[in-house]
Amino acid sequence: MFAEYDVIVVGAGHAGCEAAAAAANMGSKVLLITMNMQTIAQMSCNPAMGGIAKGQIVREIDALGGYSGIVTDKSMIQFRMLNKSKGPAMWSPRAQNDRMLFAATWRQMLEQTPNVDFYQDMVRELILKNGKACGVVTQLGHTIAAKAVVVTSGTFLNGVIHIGEKQFGGGRVAEKAATGITEQLVAQGMEASRLKTGTPPRVDGRSLDYSKMEEQQGDTEITGFSYLPNTVPITAAQQRSCYITYTNTTVHDILKTGFDRSPMFQGRIEGVGPRYCPSIEDKINRFAERDRHQLFVEPEGWNTVEIYVNGFSTSLPEEVQIQALQQVPGFENCKIFRPGYAIEYDFFPPTQLTHALETKAIQNLFFAGQINGTTGYEEAACQGIMAGMNAHLKINGQAPFILKRSEAYIGVLIDDLISKGTEEPYRMFTSRAEYRTLLRQDNADLRLTEISYRLGLASQERMEGVRKKQAAVAAITEQLQQYAIEPDAINEYLNSIQSAPLSEKQKAAKLLLRPSVTLTDMLPHLTDLQQGLQHHLPEYLEQAEIQIKYERYIAKEQELVEKMNVMEDLLIPENFDYDRLQALSSEARQKFKKVQPRTIGQAGRISGVNPSDIQILMVYMGR
Amino acid sequence: MFAEYDVIVVGAGHAGCEAAAAAANMGSKVLLITMNMQTIAQMSCNPAMGGIAKGQIVREIDALGGYSGIVTDKSMIQFRMLNKSKGPAMWSPRAQNDRMLFAATWRQMLEQTPNVDFYQDMVRELILKNGKACGVVTQLGHTIAAKAVVVTSGTFLNGVIHIGEKQFGGGRVAEKAATGITEQLVAQGMEASRLKTGTPPRVDGRSLDYSKMEEQQGDTEITGFSYLPNTVPITAAQQRSCYITYTNTTVHDILKTGFDRSPMFQGRIEGVGPRYCPSIEDKINRFAERDRHQLFVEPEGWNTVEIYVNGFSTSLPEEVQIQALQQVPGFENCKIFRPGYAIEYDFFPPTQLTHALETKAIQNLFFAGQINGTTGYEEAACQGIMAGMNAHLKINGQAPFILKRSEAYIGVLIDDLISKGTEEPYRMFTSRAEYRTLLRQDNADLRLTEISYRLGLASQERMEGVRKKQAAVAAITEQLQQYAIEPDAINEYLNSIQSAPLSEKQKAAKLLLRPSVTLTDMLPHLTDLQQGLQHHLPEYLEQAEIQIKYERYIAKEQELVEKMNVMEDLLIPENFDYDRLQALSSEARQKFKKVQPRTIGQAGRISGVNPSDIQILMVYMGR
Ligand SMILES: Cc1cc2nc3c(=O)[nH]c(=O)nc-3n(C[C@H](O)[C@H](O)[C@H](O)COP(=O)(O)OP(=O)(O)OC[C@H]3O[C@@H](n4cnc5c(N)ncnc54)[C@H](O)[C@@H]3O)c2cc1C
Ligand SMILES: Cc1cc2nc3c(=O)[nH]c(=O)nc-3n(C[C@H](O)[C@H](O)[C@H](O)COP(=O)(O)OP(=O)(O)OC[C@H]3O[C@@H](n4cnc5c(N)ncnc54)[C@H](O)[C@@H]3O)c2cc1C
Repeated sequence: MFAEYDVIVVGAGHAGCEAAAAAANMGSKVLLITMNMQTIAQMSCNPAMGGIAKGQIVREIDALGGYSGIVTDKSMIQFRMLNKSKGPAMWSPRAQNDRMLFAATWRQMLEQTPNVDFYQDMVRELILKNGKACGVVTQLGHTIAAKAVVVTSGTFLNGVIHIGEKQFGGGRVAEKAATGITEQLVAQGMEASRLKTGTPPRVDGRSLDYSKMEEQQGDTEITGFSYLPNTVPITAAQQRSCYITYTNTTVHDILKTGFDRSPMFQGRIEGVGPRYCPSIEDKINRFAERDRHQLFVEPEGWNTVEIYVNGFSTSLPEEVQIQALQQVPGFENCKIFRPGYAIEYDFFPPTQLTHALETKAIQNLFFAGQINGTTGYEEAACQGIMAGMNAHLKINGQAPFILKRSEAYIGVLIDDLISKGTEEPYRMFTSRAEYRTLLRQDNADLRLTEISYRLGLASQERMEGVRKKQAAVAAITEQLQQYAIEPDAINEYLNSIQSAPLSEKQKAAKLLLRPSVTLTDMLPHLTDLQQGLQHHLPEYLEQAEIQIKYERYIAKEQELVEKMNVMEDLLIPENFDYDRLQALSSEARQKFKKVQPRTIGQAGRISGVNPSDIQILMVYMGR
Repeated sequence: MFAEYDVIVVGAGHAGCEAAAAAANMGSKVLLITMNMQTIAQMSCNPAMGGIAKGQIVREIDALGGYSGIVTDKSMIQFRMLNKSKGPAMWSPRAQNDRMLFAATWRQMLEQTPNVDFYQDMVRELILKNGKACGVVTQLGHTIAAKAVVVTSGTFLNGVIHIGEKQFGGGRVAEKAATGITEQLVAQGMEASRLKTGTPPRVDGRSLDYSKMEEQQGDTEITGFSYLPNTVPITAAQQRSCYITYTNTTVHDILKTGFDRSPMFQGRIEGVGPRYCPSIEDKINRFAERDRHQLFVEPEGWNTVEIYVNGFSTSLPEEVQIQALQQVPGFENCKIFRPGYAIEYDFFPPTQLTHALETKAIQNLFFAGQINGTTGYEEAACQGIMAGMNAHLKINGQAPFILKRSEAYIGVLIDDLISKGTEEPYRMFTSRAEYRTLLRQDNADLRLTEISYRLGLASQERMEGVRKKQAAVAAITEQLQQYAIEPDAINEYLNSIQSAPLSEKQKAAKLLLRPSVTLTDMLPHLTDLQQGLQHHLPEYLEQAEIQIKYERYIAKEQELVEKMNVMEDLLIPENFDYDRLQALSSEARQKFKKVQPRTIGQAGRISGVNPSDIQILMVYMGR
C-alpha cells in the first residue's frame, strides 16, 4: 500500500515535526506517522515558546532552517525579551502563543513542504533487519519500509495519567497511550525507564478577578524568533497581557490536606519528575520555609477564555486543586475547565545514542524529544531537527552533523544527554553552557546558518540574509572604529550618565567599551555618524555594538574553545578496550565502557570521571 | 467542588452545543461536560452543513435562536443553494466548511455565552432520585448536581471502530469511547440497541489530478444560513471549489476482493447502518447493476491539503480502500492520510421519549442527537436546541415546547422518532414532511422566531428582523397587487419567454402567477415599479414573490394542516388502557402501549397502525 520512504518519522509532536521538515527539505521522501492528525504540534502543557536558554534554542533551530521560530512568530499573542537589563548573553526571547493557531500553523507549514507525506496510525513495532531499522509496523497492520526511522514518541509510550488516586492510560489527557515500541526495543537489549511530568489546571478566565493581580504586558517592540523578515503578523499594541499572582499559606495548607492521596507522595508514581519545573506540591514540600510561590496567569489564545495557571502544576485530587486555587488572590470564584494531572511515560536513557542521535544498538534508528529524557517543546524541537538532518545524511552516506558545545545550545544539550545521561527530565539552562557569551540569541544565524546551508537545509534566502548581516555589521564596525568623537559633542551625554568626560578625541568603538554607554543613546549626539548609519537595520547596529562591546569576553571564550577543541579533536578509537588501562578508576572505566565517548573532550565531561582519568587516557594515546 | 447547576449537558457535539446554548440563553445555569475540550463541535464525518431537508433544519435552528447557522456562515468555504431550478419548497442551502474553523467558532460562541460553564471529563453515571435525573457522576469521581440532564453522547457510548478485520474501542478514531450510561439505564429498564455508521478515507489533495474531474464551484451569490445580517465573512469569489468524479467497474472489482474481510458482510458489525448514506461496499452490493457511483471530492478547509472523499465511506481493509481509490479518475497517485472506518455505538430507541425529548422512564432526563438513533449534524443540532429549551422549561414548571409537523422539519423529525422509532439511523428528507410547501428554507424565521422569542430564546434583534421582514413583505405584496402593468411595457418580455402577451392591463401580482415569469426578470421593464421597490432587500422581494406565486399551494396545504390539527388536538388521556378496546388490531394495541401516543394525530402516524384502528380510538373517545 505504501511506497518505500527515505525517512519515517514516528510522532508529530515538536520533535517529530522538525525532524520531518528537516529531512524533507534536505531532499528525503518523508512519511510522518502520528496517532491523530488533529493534534499535530499540539502544545501538551503551557502555550508558550522560548524563555531563558530555551529562547536561544528556538533561534538556533530557526538559523538552521527549522520551522519552530516561524510558527511561534505567526501564532504569538505576546512577546518579551527576558533579561534585557543583563548582558546580551542572557537575553532570551519568549512568546505566549495561541494554542490552536500554533498547531494549525505547524500543520499548514508541513502540508506545504513537498516531501512530507502524512499518515494517521500508531506505530507498534519497528522493522529491524541485521541490526538496522528499515521501517515500521502500524496498529492497523501496515508494514511501511524506510531507509531510516526517527522515533519521537513524547509522553505517549505506555503513558499513565494520575490525578489524585485516579490513574488511567493515556499519552495526554483524552488521548490514547502508545504501546509496543518499548517492549520490542527492550527485548533487543536496549534500556528503558520511566519519567514523569505534570501540568496545571486550566480555568475559566471569566471567573477570575484580574484587578487583584499584577499585569504583565508584552514588550513595546516585538523582535520575534525568526531571522527571516516579516514573520510576526501582529503589532505590539495588539498583544495580550499575562498576570501575576501568588499562593499563600492558606493555599499551601489546603494543598497539604491532599498529600495522603497524592500519587507522587504515596509512591504510585515511580518515574522521576523535572527538578526545575516542579509541581506545586513539590514546591511547598521542598521549600517549606517559603510562604508564597509566584503564579503566572496566561491566556491560551486570542479568542478563548481558557487560562493556563503557570506554576500550579499538580496531580493532587481535583477537589483539593480547586479549593486551594480559590484561596489565591483573584481566583476566589475560579471555575476549572480541566484539572491538572501528572503523566508517567517510557524514555530511553540517552547514553544509548551517538551524537547524531542515532541509537548505538540499532543502525538508522534515531530518537528525538521527550523519548530521550528531556522536557520542553524547545528541547524536543531542536533534537528533532538534528535527528531529521542526521537521518538524511546517514542514508546518503554522509558524515553526521554534530554541533559542538561551543557552537550552539543544541550542541550542549545533545552532548549533555549523550555523555551524562539523565536521571530526571532534562531541561536547558544558560548555566549548562560553558560558552554562553558566544551562544547568544542575536547571533545564532551567524553561528549556524552557513553550516546548515552547506548541508542543504537552510535556504538561499537565509544564507543571503546572513551575508547581508555580516557585511552590514562589518561596515558598521569599520565606521565606529574610524569615527573620532569630539569631546565637545559627547561630554554632555557622558556627564548625564555619570561617565568620565573625554579630554581628547576618541574613536566611537572605544567609547562603546564603557559599560554605561550605548550606541542608541550616543548617536543622537553625533549627527553625522548617525546619518552615516541610519540606513542599517536596528538589528545590524545592535549586532555590531555587541561584538564591539563584548569583544574581550568573546575573545577569551574563543580561546578557551580552541583549547578544548584540541581535546575534542582527539578521537578515541571505536571499541577502545578500557580494561587495558589498569590505572583508570573503576567508576571511570565503567562509565567509559557504557558511554563509549567519541573524543577526549567528551570523555572529560562524563559525570564521575576525574581529570586524572583523562590524563591516563591521553598518556595512553600518546599525548 | 461544583455548585448545583440548572442543566447539565453531557457531550459537546452538535446536539450538546445547541442544547447548552439554548438552555443558557433562556436563563439556565448550564454546565457542558465533554470528554475533550479540544474537540468541541468536532465534525466527525464530512465538513459540510445543510443540503436537502438538512439545510431547512439549519435555517429553523437559526430562526429559533440557535448557533449552527451562524457558525456555518462564519466558517464556510463554499455555499450552494441546491435545487434552485425547482420550486422554493425544494431549495436547500448547503455549505462546505473549514473543519477547524467550524469547531473553533462554535467554541468561541459558547465561551461568549455567559451562562455556559465547561468541564472536561467523562460522565459515567447519572444521579437518579425518585425516578428523576438530578445530576451526574464523572470518571474522575465528581458528583455534580443539576435540576435536569441532557445526554448527547453521539457515537461514543460503547463505541467500537472497525477497519477490515481490525476492531478497537473508540468514540471516533483516536478518541476514547464512553462507558457506563448505557448499562445504568438498561438496569433501570430502558431499552438500548446498536447502530453503525461509517466515514470515507481522507486523502492528500497534493496527490490528486483535478484536471480529470468536474469542477463544482460555489454559487455566485452567497445567501447563507442565518437570518441575522452580515454573518458570512467571505465573498463569492473567495470560495473553494469541490470536484466530482466517479467509480467504475475496476474500482468495484477491487473493492469486492475485500468483502471476505469486511466487518459488515462478515457479521462482525451487529448494528444497522444508514440506508440513505450507505458505504461504497453497500452500494456496489445492493446496486450491482450500476457500473459507477458519483464521488464528491471536498476540501477540508482553507489552509489544508486534506481532502474528504464524499461517497466512498467504507470499512473494508485499508489496502483495499487505497487500491480501489487509485482506480478512480484523478486518484491514480492518491495518498491516504487516514483510512475510512465504521463505528458501532449504543442508541436508545426514541419511542422511549416524549415529544419534549424527555425520557418517559426518568423525569428531567433529556436525550438529543445520535443517541436517539438519528444520523447527521443537523438532525443532532436541532434535537439539541429542542432538548435544551425543554429542559429549561421543565425545571421552570412551564409547558413543553413542541413543534408540530406543520410548523417545522424539526417537528417532523421528532414526531417521526417518537412515533415510529427507528431501526436504522434516521436521516431527514423532504419526502418525510407532508407540508413541505409550508416548511421552506426562506420562511423559517416567519414560522418560528416569534414562538421562540415568546419563550425567551430568540433575541430582540431576531424578533425585530422578523417584524421588519413581515412589514416589508406586506408592503411589497400590496404594491404588486395594486400595480397595473401596461401591455406595451411587458409584452416584449413575455414574448421573449414564450408567454402569452397581455391584451389589457393586468396586476403585477396576477402576472406573477405564471410559472415562467419572475419578479427579477419582470421589474426592469416596469421602471416605476422597480424604483418603488428598490429600497427593499432582495430576500424581502423574494419572499413576497414566493408567497404570491405559490399562494394556492400554500393555502391548500394550510387547509390540510387545519384538518389534521383537529386530530392533533384530540388528546389521548395519559395511561389510557388500550386493552379495553377489544376491536383494535393486536399490532396496533401493542404499538399504542409502547409508544403511548399523545394525540390521535400521532397515533395515526405509528407504523403498523391502520385507519380502522384510529376510527376505533376516535369512536371510543366520543368522536
Ligand atoms: C501533562 C504534560 C505536562 C508537561 N509539562 C511540562 C512542563 O511543565 N515543562 C516542560 O518543559 N515540558 C512539559 N511537558 C513536556 C512537553 O510537552 C514535551 O517535552 C514536548 O511536547 C515533547 O515533544 P515531543 O515531540 O518529544 O513529544 P510530544 O509533544 O509528546 O508528541 C509526541 C507525538 O507522537 C505521537 N506518537 C507517540 N507515539 C506514537 C506511535 N507509537 N505511533 C504514532 N505516533 C505516536 C503522539 O500522538 C504525539 O503526536 C509536559 C507534557 C505533558 C504531556
Ligand atoms: C465515523 C463516523 C461517520 C459518520 N458518518 C456520517 C454520515 O455519513 N452521515 C451523517 O449524516 N452522519 C454521519 N456521522 C454522524 C454525525 O457525526 C453525527 O450524527 C453527529 O455528529 C451527532 O452529533 P451528536 O451531537 O449527537 O454527537 P457527536 O458529534 O458524536 O458528539 C458527542 C460528544 O459527546 C461527548 N461525549 C460522549 N459521551 C460522553 C460522556 N459520557 N461524557 C462526556 N462527554 C461525552 C463526546 O466527546 C463528543 O464530544 C458519522 C459519525 C462518525 C463518528
